[in-house]
Amino acid sequence: MIQIPRGTQDILPKDTYKWQYIEQRLHKIAQNYNYKEIRTPVFESTELFVRGVGGSTDIVNKEMYTFKDKGDRSMTLKPEGTAPVVRSYIENKMQHDVNQPVKVYYQAPMFRYERRQKGRYRQFVQFGIEAIGVEDPLIDVEVLSMLMHIYQSFGLKNLKLYINSIGDQNSRAAYNQALVDHFRPSIHEFCSDCQVRIDTNPMRILDCKKDRDHPLVQNAPVIYDYLNDESKAYFEEVKQNLDALGIPYEVDYNLVRGLDYYTHTAFELMSDAEGFGAITTLCGGGRYNGLLELLDGPSETGIGFALSIERLLLALEAEGLELPEPEGIDLYICTLDESASTAAGRLVHKLRTEGISCDMDYKHRKLKAQMKDADRKGASHTIVIGETELDSNEAELKNMTTGESKKISLGDVEEIRTIIEEK
Amino acid sequence: MIQIPRGTQDILPKDTYKWQYIEQRLHKIAQNYNYKEIRTPVFESTELFVRGVGGSTDIVNKEMYTFKDKGDRSMTLKPEGTAPVVRSYIENKMQHDVNQPVKVYYQAPMFRYERRQKGRYRQFVQFGIEAIGVEDPLIDVEVLSMLMHIYQSFGLKNLKLYINSIGDQNSRAAYNQALVDHFRPSIHEFCSDCQVRIDTNPMRILDCKKDRDHPLVQNAPVIYDYLNDESKAYFEEVKQNLDALGIPYEVDYNLVRGLDYYTHTAFELMSDAEGFGAITTLCGGGRYNGLLELLDGPSETGIGFALSIERLLLALEAEGLELPEPEGIDLYICTLDESASTAAGRLVHKLRTEGISCDMDYKHRKLKAQMKDADRKGASHTIVIGETELDSNEAELKNMTTGESKKISLGDVEEIRTIIEEK
Repeated sequence: MIQIPRGTQDILPKDTYKWQYIEQRLHKIAQNYNYKEIRTPVFESTELFVRGVGGSTDIVNKEMYTFKDKGDRSMTLKPEGTAPVVRSYIENKMQHDVNQPVKVYYQAPMFRYERRQKGRYRQFVQFGIEAIGVEDPLIDVEVLSMLMHIYQSFGLKNLKLYINSIGDQNSRAAYNQALVDHFRPSIHEFCSDCQVRIDTNPMRILDCKKDRDHPLVQNAPVIYDYLNDESKAYFEEVKQNLDALGIPYEVDYNLVRGLDYYTHTAFELMSDAEGFGAITTLCGGGRYNGLLELLDGPSETGIGFALSIERLLLALEAEGLELPEPEGIDLYICTLDESASTAAGRLVHKLRTEGISCDMDYKHRKLKAQMKDADRKGASHTIVIGETELDSNEAELKNMTTGESKKISLGDVEEIRTIIEEK
Repeated sequence: MIQIPRGTQDILPKDTYKWQYIEQRLHKIAQNYNYKEIRTPVFESTELFVRGVGGSTDIVNKEMYTFKDKGDRSMTLKPEGTAPVVRSYIENKMQHDVNQPVKVYYQAPMFRYERRQKGRYRQFVQFGIEAIGVEDPLIDVEVLSMLMHIYQSFGLKNLKLYINSIGDQNSRAAYNQALVDHFRPSIHEFCSDCQVRIDTNPMRILDCKKDRDHPLVQNAPVIYDYLNDESKAYFEEVKQNLDALGIPYEVDYNLVRGLDYYTHTAFELMSDAEGFGAITTLCGGGRYNGLLELLDGPSETGIGFALSIERLLLALEAEGLELPEPEGIDLYICTLDESASTAAGRLVHKLRTEGISCDMDYKHRKLKAQMKDADRKGASHTIVIGETELDSNEAELKNMTTGESKKISLGDVEEIRTIIEEK
């Protein structure tokens, strides 16, 4: 038997309503914040991610689904959504759009070849936003407030927002040197990845999962002390505006980004719900003022975040929150014989084209089994058609909530609709 | 500059509303017909398509995006949606679900490495449905009526539905032999593909694009003459019920399917709109009673169709039909200085979390440019905040349609909402 690819999942018909609900909610919130959807292809040139995510990252080194297309070009299934959006921005010259800043959102499958664990799939769905073309603490705050609004709108309470500033590129050069001076003498005590990072990305030693308890990580130099005045002022303004909006947060000076194009605001949203499991990051993001130029684009700046729908579902589960199940169908037509089935087929056709959701039996079941089927499908109304009903062209339309029945003409779609919509 | 992969497209923010509109419509119609969404991974084992689509098809031979994953397993980006749904049905033992038949729909990107031409992309979006677990002409008619309902609901008029029956497997063995006898003596006059097809898939000679005008294709044996009584009766019942529903169709005896698992009803919907271009097939489908067993599943039968959203958009364009553009935002707040911006940031935050769509200026533009921006964003209302408004904590909320202004308190979200919702 052929099986589903390892590390991926089917979303089965009984569960898709959850995804639809979340997606509709995200779409509506994006609308309120005036972000418009953008869709980029499932795969992109491998080079886009090597340059845009970074050749020294785990994503690029270990986790990408890369393949050659029939034209011998190296392609990669998107592992993340920012680089593709920026590629599209540059290619479509969106810096010249009259609408500025360019505020977009995406929702798409992403692919990372990772070890399997709870809540982590090799194909997962990310929702993300990007605001490109403006550098202002107020837009950073807009992005953060939208993020919090999303999670709070689902009723989640155990949320912790961590923020930091990694300053501009000048601030960071000094900080990187301080980190190298701090770690170099004892770097042999660190994991092999960190022994590489000290030369490629010293900041990433700070968020290494293996070395997080090493005393030198605990007392490492703090980036805030290396921020120049401009970077400090930017960070202060972000914090003041978050305070003014009543959005609680904590500053985490170890929250860093290893790549050169990241600047200023960096953030992560964590869940501290019990039973959530080991991976508690719900969402991450930050400002990336250097990314557009790195990808040969204009010198525009950007900020964004990305969240995984799978992780959001886990967070809802951990807090015992359930998404509303969809309503059942409006009408189920039970049939007593074959000519009744033919008549029922015609009636459901007319009703469906008029916008009424309905179904009937196609399995030649007995009436009792059909009534059970109607119940399973959540039918708010039923009709039974047999010889008598066919002869008189009339039937009883029964409201399954009240138990009330009304006589209707089988040819009168309007009458049926009116009664159904009364419910 | 890194470019989008050849043959793929970005759906840009100015166009995504069309896709959202179509998807919401399809979702609503699927609900009316009581089909539930299913989502399968973007890629599957290559073997699934080799077996489930057929090793002799162009799709499998020439058009698949196939790659090895890091576990050295051969994977393929889905070129079509039926085989993955059937794989999921089998793997999740859906034949034991209480809800029967299993009626599902999907909407997902598909991938075929084809020559580029108008309306054909290497990544395209298919919407499709499958009804598995029942063999009854009435469900075939349900599928056909849903298909027609979808296209008609967008206002399309130049539609032509072609149907045929390719009978059951017994009928087809006899027919295949008749075709071989008919074509064999002159097969050297046919294209190289057809010279292979005569041994692998003689029926597919009938829909060869290169040989369609060959006299032997024109006067080939007709499948209808080879249908056994059962198959003929099934076909007659489908046609009678289509007639009863008032769905116009034409029988096309050359509409065949080359693979053994196809049975009975086969159909295609074409557009005969002028200016539609060379590819006029909007949607195709049919019954596949042998597919589940071929994939080591239970002996359940199925029927479905798949349509491309890109092609649907082209059809709308060809008939001059436009999809409704989304409404603009509810409110745009103009600001006269920096402290006004800070106040506006707080106000938009409160309004957005209360479900009101709004935006403000982040680019420090002059008032006139901000008013233009509000207009571009379709704002139904505006507020201007400057020193006076900050001092009094009051401002004018202007309705951009009527030109009317009302004084509001900047702290009173409910008051603002009430006025906005009056519009």
